[in-house]
Amino acid sequence: MTRAPIITSLQNPQIKRLVRLKTRRARDEEGVILIEGARELFRAIGGGLVPAEVYHCPELYSPEAHEVADTLSAPLTELSRPAFEKVSGRENPDGLLAVVSAPRVRLPEPGPEAVVVVLHGLEKPGNVGAILRTADASGAAGVLVLGRGADPYGPNVIRASQGSVFALPVAVMTEEEAQTWLSAHGFTTVACTPDAPRVYWDAPLRGRVALLLGTEHEGLPAAWRQSDHSVRIPMHAGGADSLNVATAAALMLYECQRQRRSSAS
Amino acid sequence: MTRAPIITSLQNPQIKRLVRLKTRRARDEEGVILIEGARELFRAIGGGLVPAEVYHCPELYSPEAHEVADTLSAPLTELSRPAFEKVSGRENPDGLLAVVSAPRVRLPEPGPEAVVVVLHGLEKPGNVGAILRTADASGAAGVLVLGRGADPYGPNVIRASQGSVFALPVAVMTEEEAQTWLSAHGFTTVACTPDAPRVYWDAPLRGRVALLLGTEHEGLPAAWRQSDHSVRIPMHAGGADSLNVATAAALMLYECQRQRRSSAS
Repeated sequence: MTRAPIITSLQNPQIKRLVRLKTRRARDEEGVILIEGARELFRAIGGGLVPAEVYHCPELYSPEAHEVADTLSAPLTELSRPAFEKVSGRENPDGLLAVVSAPRVRLPEPGPEAVVVVLHGLEKPGNVGAILRTADASGAAGVLVLGRGADPYGPNVIRASQGSVFALPVAVMTEEEAQTWLSAHGFTTVACTPDAPRVYWDAPLRGRVALLLGTEHEGLPAAWRQSDHSVRIPMHAGGADSLNVATAAALMLYECQRQRRSSAS
Repeated sequence: MTRAPIITSLQNPQIKRLVRLKTRRARDEEGVILIEGARELFRAIGGGLVPAEVYHCPELYSPEAHEVADTLSAPLTELSRPAFEKVSGRENPDGLLAVVSAPRVRLPEPGPEAVVVVLHGLEKPGNVGAILRTADASGAAGVLVLGRGADPYGPNVIRASQGSVFALPVAVMTEEEAQTWLSAHGFTTVACTPDAPRVYWDAPLRGRVALLLGTEHEGLPAAWRQSDHSVRIPMHAGGADSLNVATAAALMLYECQRQRRSSAS
C-alpha cells in the first residue's frame, strides 16, 4: 500500500477549497456540508451519510478520533498540523474533517403520537443545536426549519447539536411546505407565546403535535400564531423576563413525553 | 459642575487595574466583582448591589445603556473608546462597566415549598449562567454553588445569566456548609443521575426540595448520591447520550412548579 503524500502547503488548492467551504454560500454551490469532529462524524455515519472525502491530522487526534478514524472506509487525506488548523473551524480541532453531500431529508410518515418541532427564523447556532440535541434525546420524530436563520447543517449547529442533527430528520422547508405537510398529516399545532392564558402543562399534547418556536425577540409570525393551542411557560414575577428558546423547547418536548407516558401506564 | 477628564491612555493605572480585574484572582484579592453591560448592571442594582465605581464610554452606548446610565447615582468615569475596549470582556461592549464589592449572599429562611438548586463543580460559565436564568424564571428560592467550578460572579456567568445571578440568592459554599443548611431546614434532596430507576415526573417534589446537579461527565460525588430521591430524565433509545446539564436543570425546576400548581388547584 502506497502512502499518499501529506498536504503541507497552505496554498494547496484543496486547502483553499476547504477554507472556502467554511461559508454557507460555497457549501450551497457545491451541494456539500462540512462535518468536523469524531463524535459528529460518527453520528453522521450512523445516520446514513457517506463521507466521500475525509481529511485528517493524526498529530491532533483525540482518543475518540483515533477510534472513529479506524472505522472509516473512505480514503483519508492527511494534512499537516498547520494545514489542518487552517481548514478547521474549531479552537481545538481533533484531527477529523469530512466533506459530505448535503443530505436531502424527507420527513418520514409520522406515527400516531409523533412530536415535531417547527423552528422559525432562529438565528443563533447554539440555540438551534441545543434544540436538535434535546429533540433527539426526547424522541421527537423530526424538526422542520423555516425562514431565514441558522443553517441547521452549518458547522456551528452540527457542533452544538453534538451530531444530533444527523440522528433525527431535520428538514429545511418553506412556510407553505411546512403548513401543507402538517395539515396533511393532521398535526395539532402548539405555539409557545408569553401572553397565552394557558400554561403548557395544562394543554392536551397527545396525538400528532407540532411545537412552534420563534425567535426570542420577535416570536412567531402572525400566520403561525393561528395555531390550535397557544401556551405559555409560567414566569416568576419580577424574575427573568424570558426563557432561552432552547429551554422553552426542552420543557415543551418533555411535557409531550410526560403526557404520553403518564396516560399510557 | 466640572466635567472630569476622559481617560485615554492605555497605560493609565486605573485602566491597568481594570484589566487585572479580569482575572478571578485579582477580583478575589480586592474583594470585588466586575459587572459589564446595561442589563446586567440594571439587574444588579435591582438586586440591591451598589456600584461604587462605574466606567463608561458614551460612544459605545446601546439604547439600553443610555437609559440605565441616566438612572445611576454613582459618578461615572469616562473612558475613550480604545480604553473601554481594552477593559471590556466583550466583543461588542455597550459602554458600561462597574466595579462592585463582592456580594455576601446569605440564603434566606426558606418557605415551605422552596426549591433550591445545588450545583457541584460545574465548569462551563454558559451552563451555570443558563441554570441561574432558568432558576430565576421558575421562581427558585436560591442556588448553592459548591466545589471547584465556574465562579458564579465571574463576567461570563453574569453575562450568560443575563444578570439573573443578582435576582435570586446565589451562595458559594463548601459541601459541608451546604449539607448542614439543607438538613437543618429539612430539604428533600433529589439527585439527577442517568441510571436512576425512577423518572423525574414520578418523584414527589413537593415541600422543600433541593435539586442536585453535577458535571455532565463526572456526575455527582458519591456523598451527594446518597440523596432522598434519585431520578432520571428518560432518553430516547439510540438518540443523544446525554442532555445538557442546564436542560436537565430546567426540566427538574419546572416539574417542581408543575407539581406545586397542579395539586394546589
